[in-house]
Amino acid sequence: MPDLDLMKTLTQKTDSKIIMLVMDGIGGLPREPGGPTELEAASTPNLDRLASEAMVGLVDPVGVGITPGSGPGHLGLFGYDPLQYLIGRGVLESVGIGLELTSDDVAARGNFCTVDAGGIITDRRAGRIPTEECARMVGLIDDIILPGVELIVKPVRDYRFALVLRAPGLSAELNETDPQKVGAEPLSVGPLDGSPEAGRTADLVNQWLDQVRERIKDESPANMVTLRGWSKEPGLPGFEEVYKLKAAALAVYPMYKGLATLVGMTLIPGLNDLQDQLAALKKEWDSFDFFFFHYKYTDSRGEDGDFDAKVKEIETVDKIIPTIVDQKPDVLIVTGDHSTPAILKSHSWHPVPVLLWAPATGRANPDVTGFNESQCLKGALGQFRGTDLMALATAYAGKQAKYGA
Amino acid sequence: MPDLDLMKTLTQKTDSKIIMLVMDGIGGLPREPGGPTELEAASTPNLDRLASEAMVGLVDPVGVGITPGSGPGHLGLFGYDPLQYLIGRGVLESVGIGLELTSDDVAARGNFCTVDAGGIITDRRAGRIPTEECARMVGLIDDIILPGVELIVKPVRDYRFALVLRAPGLSAELNETDPQKVGAEPLSVGPLDGSPEAGRTADLVNQWLDQVRERIKDESPANMVTLRGWSKEPGLPGFEEVYKLKAAALAVYPMYKGLATLVGMTLIPGLNDLQDQLAALKKEWDSFDFFFFHYKYTDSRGEDGDFDAKVKEIETVDKIIPTIVDQKPDVLIVTGDHSTPAILKSHSWHPVPVLLWAPATGRANPDVTGFNESQCLKGALGQFRGTDLMALATAYAGKQAKYGA
Repeated sequence: MPDLDLMKTLTQKTDSKIIMLVMDGIGGLPREPGGPTELEAASTPNLDRLASEAMVGLVDPVGVGITPGSGPGHLGLFGYDPLQYLIGRGVLESVGIGLELTSDDVAARGNFCTVDAGGIITDRRAGRIPTEECARMVGLIDDIILPGVELIVKPVRDYRFALVLRAPGLSAELNETDPQKVGAEPLSVGPLDGSPEAGRTADLVNQWLDQVRERIKDESPANMVTLRGWSKEPGLPGFEEVYKLKAAALAVYPMYKGLATLVGMTLIPGLNDLQDQLAALKKEWDSFDFFFFHYKYTDSRGEDGDFDAKVKEIETVDKIIPTIVDQKPDVLIVTGDHSTPAILKSHSWHPVPVLLWAPATGRANPDVTGFNESQCLKGALGQFRGTDLMALATAYAGKQAKYGA
Repeated sequence: MPDLDLMKTLTQKTDSKIIMLVMDGIGGLPREPGGPTELEAASTPNLDRLASEAMVGLVDPVGVGITPGSGPGHLGLFGYDPLQYLIGRGVLESVGIGLELTSDDVAARGNFCTVDAGGIITDRRAGRIPTEECARMVGLIDDIILPGVELIVKPVRDYRFALVLRAPGLSAELNETDPQKVGAEPLSVGPLDGSPEAGRTADLVNQWLDQVRERIKDESPANMVTLRGWSKEPGLPGFEEVYKLKAAALAVYPMYKGLATLVGMTLIPGLNDLQDQLAALKKEWDSFDFFFFHYKYTDSRGEDGDFDAKVKEIETVDKIIPTIVDQKPDVLIVTGDHSTPAILKSHSWHPVPVLLWAPATGRANPDVTGFNESQCLKGALGQFRGTDLMALATAYAGKQAKYGA
């Protein structure tokens, strides 16, 4: 399998344009034995026509039999081996709300929780307080000062917030403070290794937690916090360095914006729905070579276990395909970061349908008439690992030099 | 590709049950151009129905174009990369006859041979003496005593026996003593590396060989031995540690029992035929999570070059499928450790048909109507390496956590 160093040496700057449309959690399963999957049940004339003109296949975003989280799933599609590049939850949450992390930063995902008078957790999510209440609570603790370290505290969504400590010589080798159950106190932070860096960072975090406790102890329902997913910015080589692609991220949800920034994509701000994304695609067309276009709700309805609603979301995306095609991309990819079969109500390990449409250099699948799991089984692309997708995309976009003489 | 360390972190204990039915050497080839393979010629209504309800594909137990021995073939199916985990022939022979090896042991495969008055080998297999004669010969040399080392000598089959030296600080870095031709003397043993451990072990083995020579020099036809396949117990991480599976081995032949014990499976003793194996499957159902069910004779008849007899063996196994399905496994896998086409009379490199039936979370191959090489080509599982099979099995059994957030 090609790796990033190989890609760096082979890819070259061209005028060609690539669009990667990620329908989150798109892969599915039949609701009843012998029945159609979500994609098979959906009416998708536009995707079906593309499939008949394109090459289709199945992609394993992480590996055969592995159920990808959103982070590893996207990294795989972007060509970064998720088994090699690990991204902590703290970093994901932070970049997801637009924080630009530096190599000095240590990030955690924070949860507001409820504790009783004795400090025992009675609700790990403080009744799932709404985002506005989360923002108010963050306002009570975002001006805490510690010596020698810059602190950033930002609300994320519902009961979740991001905490970043910025100073040279910090370590993310820290234990989480969430005891993972009610009826116990939040843990204090300690170093996971014996390093002085982790010891010093743990001391700083514990001082911060003491001040947080003091400031919000009389609030309700949230009156304490837990911290999880300690991590540092992974320092991934950027899309431009690896693929010679100036890349734009057209995403609505923080998590996917965050993933895009980690690989050096430019976030197009202020996008709230598909129409915004389409308008941005048009507006930014001349400024970028690669467009990551993310749609969340196929996954959301799969996670809800709502087969019919997922079918509807698929049909919603199908309707915008002509507008995307109107841009005349050199390569258009349609796939997902993992499967989310409604009958499983969760991400799954099933390989994900993928479509690669490259009008200039592609070839049609003679037997393929639609875009779904059973059609993709017959596809010219076969079944392959996620990390191979960008190699294919750049090849079909004419961006790759010959390997060797 | 997922490795064992990743599997260890992702798999979790559940109540689900997995059966892996290995039809040894199941893959085949047409007897005449355009004709059916053994699987295609066989009447297998039960396997065909499973295939239509299951997912099928083709597995390369070791790698594309590699002809697996039984050891590497099975290790691959069990998820242990056979290119990474090497098991010496001495260890295989020893565990195959039920010896429980320790990390102190060095094992060799021994051959009885015939030498002339000058010590020159005239028959490397002593006329392929029968197993009973082998046992008698072993009785002449199994009480040799060497200082500081426990010696175990056991007959295996025909002219073959197993030798184990048990003591701390021994090494298996020794040359073989079989000159691989007649007309030469057996070699003496020396260290392959410069280590004192190998030197000491070589001295011990040479002392043992001197005593053997003295004891059997007047016997006939076997009057000397050669030693091959020096090896140590490989210390594989166990099935329970890697997959959280308590595994039982339902095998008749020593070699496969031995392989199963190397990955920590529990041997169910006293099994002599399919009916014993089926009874044990039923009896032990509640005590284990994973059942390795091995059938030897498909391979044996392939090795014989007897196409029709191999077809009959396939049909014999097909008849027991309903009884296996009656146990209601969450995942049932049917495959082989390699192909043994009757026309080749040997193991071969051809990928092996595989069937993965998971009623709860699988999906049918829409175009698949049977279990054989040409149907499996169209299968939803595609073609994959043996080491991915257990990742799929545990995923479909609901035993795997999501990878990453």
